[in-house]
Amino acid sequence: MLAKHNPQLNRHGELIHLLSTEGLSRDILTHILDTATNFVSINDREVKKVPLLRGKSVFNLFFENSTRTRTTFEIAAKRLSADVLNLDISRSSTAKGETLLDTIANLSAMAADLFVVRHSQSGAPYLIAQHVAPHVHVVNAGDGRHGHPTQGLLDMYTIRHYKKDFTNLSVAIVGDVLHSRVARSDIHALTTLGCPDLRVVGPSTLVPENFSAMGARVVHSLDEGIRDADVIIMLRLQNERMSGALLPSSQEYFKKFGLTPERLRLAKPDAIVMHPGPINRGVEIASEVVDGDQSVILPQVTFGIAVRMAVMSIVAGNEA
Amino acid sequence: MLAKHNPQLNRHGELIHLLSTEGLSRDILTHILDTATNFVSINDREVKKVPLLRGKSVFNLFFENSTRTRTTFEIAAKRLSADVLNLDISRSSTAKGETLLDTIANLSAMAADLFVVRHSQSGAPYLIAQHVAPHVHVVNAGDGRHGHPTQGLLDMYTIRHYKKDFTNLSVAIVGDVLHSRVARSDIHALTTLGCPDLRVVGPSTLVPENFSAMGARVVHSLDEGIRDADVIIMLRLQNERMSGALLPSSQEYFKKFGLTPERLRLAKPDAIVMHPGPINRGVEIASEVVDGDQSVILPQVTFGIAVRMAVMSIVAGNEA
Amino acid sequence: MLAKHNPQLNRHGELIHLLSTEGLSRDILTHILDTATNFVSINDREVKKVPLLRGKSVFNLFFENSTRTRTTFEIAAKRLSADVLNLDISRSSTAKGETLLDTIANLSAMAADLFVVRHSQSGAPYLIAQHVAPHVHVVNAGDGRHGHPTQGLLDMYTIRHYKKDFTNLSVAIVGDVLHSRVARSDIHALTTLGCPDLRVVGPSTLVPENFSAMGARVVHSLDEGIRDADVIIMLRLQNERMSGALLPSSQEYFKKFGLTPERLRLAKPDAIVMHPGPINRGVEIASEVVDGDQSVILPQVTFGIAVRMAVMSIVAGNEA
Repeated sequence: MLAKHNPQLNRHGELIHLLSTEGLSRDILTHILDTATNFVSINDREVKKVPLLRGKSVFNLFFENSTRTRTTFEIAAKRLSADVLNLDISRSSTAKGETLLDTIANLSAMAADLFVVRHSQSGAPYLIAQHVAPHVHVVNAGDGRHGHPTQGLLDMYTIRHYKKDFTNLSVAIVGDVLHSRVARSDIHALTTLGCPDLRVVGPSTLVPENFSAMGARVVHSLDEGIRDADVIIMLRLQNERMSGALLPSSQEYFKKFGLTPERLRLAKPDAIVMHPGPINRGVEIASEVVDGDQSVILPQVTFGIAVRMAVMSIVAGNEA
Repeated sequence: MLAKHNPQLNRHGELIHLLSTEGLSRDILTHILDTATNFVSINDREVKKVPLLRGKSVFNLFFENSTRTRTTFEIAAKRLSADVLNLDISRSSTAKGETLLDTIANLSAMAADLFVVRHSQSGAPYLIAQHVAPHVHVVNAGDGRHGHPTQGLLDMYTIRHYKKDFTNLSVAIVGDVLHSRVARSDIHALTTLGCPDLRVVGPSTLVPENFSAMGARVVHSLDEGIRDADVIIMLRLQNERMSGALLPSSQEYFKKFGLTPERLRLAKPDAIVMHPGPINRGVEIASEVVDGDQSVILPQVTFGIAVRMAVMSIVAGNEA
Repeated sequence: MLAKHNPQLNRHGELIHLLSTEGLSRDILTHILDTATNFVSINDREVKKVPLLRGKSVFNLFFENSTRTRTTFEIAAKRLSADVLNLDISRSSTAKGETLLDTIANLSAMAADLFVVRHSQSGAPYLIAQHVAPHVHVVNAGDGRHGHPTQGLLDMYTIRHYKKDFTNLSVAIVGDVLHSRVARSDIHALTTLGCPDLRVVGPSTLVPENFSAMGARVVHSLDEGIRDADVIIMLRLQNERMSGALLPSSQEYFKKFGLTPERLRLAKPDAIVMHPGPINRGVEIASEVVDGDQSVILPQVTFGIAVRMAVMSIVAGNEA
C-alpha cells in the first residue's frame, strides 16, 4: 500500500509522524486503537512501565502552553521508559531571534527521537516534520484550529470501547465546532472508520454550513441534533479563542445548547456523553450530566494515556 | 486499632494520606521515623535509588510556588524510582475556569498514584483527599497556615536523632508562630510523642495566648523561653505573609527575639538549634549561630529527603 | 602532577570541577576529548543510556535562563542515567532573601552530586565550588563574560574531529569577542592545545587590542582575519548584552563582518565554519554559509552532548 505525498507515512505506508487524522487509512487507525488496548491494562498494574522507548529522547515542544496535554504526553512517554524533556519554547532561543527551523535543526542534532509539538499556528507540525532529520518523529499535540489527532484518536478509542462498532452509529458533535481542532480530528476519523450518521450541532455562528462538505450534517437545534444519537461529543465553549461579537453569554448559550439531563433523554437510552475537557460546568453541559451514569469523560482521560503510548511507540518503531 | 473519621487512615488504621501530624498516633509517627532511618543511609551510597515506587507516578501539584519543597519531594520520589511530574497548576486548566475538583478528577484518571499538594488555602489537601480515586494517595506539602506535616516529621526525626527520647525534653519554638504551618505541625507531633515541656516564644503579636490551648506554654521573652531548653526551633520571620501593622522592623525584631550566641548560652549546653529555612540571617537568628556547633539546620535538610521517602513509600504501600 | 591553587583539581591533579578551560593542562583537555569520543557513538544507538551516573543527582542551577544550554546538560545527564532536577532559581528561596551560599548549602545537603551552574556574574561557579560539600562537583555552564568551558571543549572536539591536530592550524574567532564567554574559553583551550596561529577578528569596539595579551592576534579586517584559516569560529552578535552606543546596525555589521560565501573563499578550501548558536542569519553570517558544505554547526551540537557527558562522568568519578 504505497501512499504518495502523505508526509505522515514512509514509502512502505507505515506511520512515521502523526500530524492529522485526515489521510490515515482505516487500517492505520485501527492498528493504533488495537495497540492502545495493550496499554490500557498497564495503567492498572503495580509497575506501569514498559521498555519500548528505553534510551529514546522525547522532546515536548510546546510553543503554546497546555499543561494538561503536555502532562498526558509526559506520562505516556515515561511509561514507555523514554527520557522526556520539556522545553518552554516561548522562553528559549526563538525569543533571541532564531528561526523556528534553526531551533528544530538544533534540537534534532541533540539526537532527539520524537518531538511532541503544540503550536498556535495551523500546519506548524507539518513544517517541522518536513525539516527534521530522518531519525526524528513528530506527533502533533494540537495546531491552531487544524487538528488535535491524539485527542481524535482517544475519542475513537472511547467510542469503540463502549459501542464496539462504528458502522451503525449516530454521533453528534455539539458546540463550538468552528474553533475546535478536536471536532476536525473527530470528523476525519469517524468518516474513515465508517460512521454513517455524523451531525455537527450548534448555533450558526459556531457551526457554519460549510462543515457539511466534510461529510457531517449541520444542525442548528440541539434537540434535533442529539435525537436518537448513540454518542454525544460535547465541546468546550472556547471563550479564550473568540472575539467579542461572536461570544454568546454563558447563560444564553446554556439555555439553547447546554446538555441537560432532560435533553439527554432525546438520545438513545444507552448513549454515552464525551467531552475533551476542560469542562465549563453550566455553560455547555450541566453538572448532573458530567457526573451522571452516561458520562465517559474520565475514562476518556485514562484512554488518552494509552492512545498516546500507542502512537509514540508505533511512529518511533518505523523507519523514515 | 480502628480509627474513625480520620481521613488519613484506612479502616485498618493504616496511613493512606499524610494531611496533618494532628490525629496521628505515636505508633504511626514512630513507624514513619523508623522507616526514614533506612533511607538516611541511602543518601551516602554510590547508587541512591531503591525500587519501592518503580512504575508509580508522583504528581507534584503546587498551587503555591515553593521551589525548595518541590525539589525535596522530587528528589525523594526519584530515589524511590517513581516517575515524577511537576505541574505548574497556576498556568494550567484551573486558569481556564475548571474547578479544583475537576482538575483533580482528571489527574486521577491519568493513573496517578500519589499527589503531593501545596496550596495557599488551609484544608485544600483534605478536600482533595476526599475526592481522589481510591488508588490515589495525597501528601500535604503545606496548606495555608494549617500545617506542613513532612516538615514537622523531619523536625521530629532530627530531634530523635540528636536527643534519642522525647519524654524528657524541653523544646522551644521561637518566632513567628502565628503564621507558621511548621509550628502547628511540630506542636501536634511533639505532644503526641510525649514531650513534657513545650514553649512557644515570641512577641504577643506573633504568639497569641490561645496557643496554650494546644498544650504549649506561651512565653513573650526570649531569655525565659529558651532557658534550659534542649531543642530550639527558630522560625522564619515570614515578611511575605504579614500586613503592614504587624510587621516589626528587622533590627528591632533581632534585638528582642534574634538568637545570638550569648542568648544561646541560656539553653542547655548541648542544646541543638533548628530552622526550617530559608533563613534570614541577622533577623531571627545570628549568622554565628547558623554556622555554629549547635546548629543542625543542614542535617535537617538531609533528613527531610529520607522522611519524605518514608512517607511516600508508606502511604503508597497501603490499600485505601 | 600536583597542581597548586587550582580549584578545579584535587590533590592528585584530577578534575573535580569544570570551571574554566584556563588552567587545564593539555593532558586533561585531551582526556576529556578522548572520553567524549566514546559517547559520540552512543547517540547513534537504539538505547542511548549508559549507567555511569546511575543513582546520582544532577541539579541544573540556572540563575540566568538558557533553555538551550540547560537542555543539552539535561540530555547528557539522562544519557548517563542520572536523576536530573531543574531548579528555576530566580523563583526560589533566593527571592525570599536567602543568600546564594545558603541556597547552595541547602541543595548540597539534599545529597546532590553535581551542580550545573549558569550565572550572569563572572566567577559565581568558583564561589560555589569553594563552598559546596566535598561530595558535590560543579560544572560551569556559562558565567558572565568569563567563560563557557563546555562550549569551549565542544569547539575543541569539533576542530579535532575535522582537523585531527591543533599544532599546524590557523584559527580565526570572528565577531563580538568582547562580550563572548565562548571566545575566552576557546582562546585558553586552543593555546594550551598548541594552536600556533590564533586570530580574533572584528571591529575595534568588539575586539579590543588587549586580547593580544591572551596570545591571539587582533585583526580589525575580516578579509585579513580569515585569510588562509583552517577554522573559522563565528560568534553571535549579542545585541541583548550591548548598550546603545556600542550597537552597530545589523546591516552595517553584516556588510563589514558578515561571513558570506565570497569571503569564505579567502580561507583554506577545506576550512570549516563553526558557530555556538543561536544564529542571527544575515547579521554575522549569511544563510548560504550556515547551510553550506563547510558548515559544521549542527555537528557541534551533537558533539556538545557527548562532551558534556564526558565532563560530568569524569568529575563525578574523582574524589575531592
